[in-house]
Amino acid sequence: MSIVFKPIGLIHTPFQEPEGVPIQGALRPDLEGRVDIFSEFEEGLKDIEGFSHLILLYHFHLVKEHTLVARPFLDDTPRGIFAVRGPRRPNPIGMTVVRLIRRERNILHIRGVDMVNGTPLLDIKPYFPDIDAHSSVKLGWMGNKLKKTGKTTNADDRFLNE
Amino acid sequence: MSIVFKPIGLIHTPFQEPEGVPIQGALRPDLEGRVDIFSEFEEGLKDIEGFSHLILLYHFHLVKEHTLVARPFLDDTPRGIFAVRGPRRPNPIGMTVVRLIRRERNILHIRGVDMVNGTPLLDIKPYFPDIDAHSSVKLGWMGNKLKKTGKTTNADDRFLNE
Repeated sequence: MSIVFKPIGLIHTPFQEPEGVPIQGALRPDLEGRVDIFSEFEEGLKDIEGFSHLILLYHFHLVKEHTLVARPFLDDTPRGIFAVRGPRRPNPIGMTVVRLIRRERNILHIRGVDMVNGTPLLDIKPYFPDIDAHSSVKLGWMGNKLKKTGKTTNADDRFLNE
Repeated sequence: MSIVFKPIGLIHTPFQEPEGVPIQGALRPDLEGRVDIFSEFEEGLKDIEGFSHLILLYHFHLVKEHTLVARPFLDDTPRGIFAVRGPRRPNPIGMTVVRLIRRERNILHIRGVDMVNGTPLLDIKPYFPDIDAHSSVKLGWMGNKLKKTGKTTNADDRFLNE
């Protein structure tokens, strides 16, 4: 039942290590980064310039072991890994919606990054609000913690080392 | 550079084949399905009951070969695979936001399914509007096609056989 994927490119960001990375890109929408798509996949970027928001799926490549219960950044109670967004997941796939600033051939200049530099990219999908934006959402343990946290919340070493 | 994942469960839906599946779950929010999480991962579901919307990441397991350019359901012009949501992607990962109706131990009852029955599940993330909902979005080739399509748009065999 193994599923084998290969990176389609690499994400470049100002962060050389997990510590200091914003816990979510949406909290620091100004932070610039770059996606370098491997040239063999460049043709797949056709028409992407028309979109302002892209969903990036990527590999949390620094994760060595998963956990089933993790303490989220914004809560002191350990929560089930599928009820948090941290990286130490059984299949460590990260997801961030970023803004596309411009494309140059196989390079996408983006904003709103929250990955470590050199993160392997698995997929890019166009963001469609009619499908992807939902309201009247029940937020469980999160409640309004995210709204209250403001724009200065960066990661410590919690996820990789606890 | 290979990345190996293993399913954490299976998604059960009324669709025994790709033909007839809604092109997006959000267009048929009533459609019920079920996620069966393998028992070894059940502890990771702790606290998930508090959330109304979940992001499912799954394997488009029927895809045999990827394509870099594909004709989307709502357009006749071939588009870059990273500018569409179809399954024949270099890494065939699907993403759907579903509603969680209730949990029974390792089983999640959900609504808004758009996968084939038996689809291998890779990850579940809680949906946070502050992170995941974006407005003022430029929609490229899609424009307002999705808004106009209504709730009856189901898939044909285009993605698997073209």
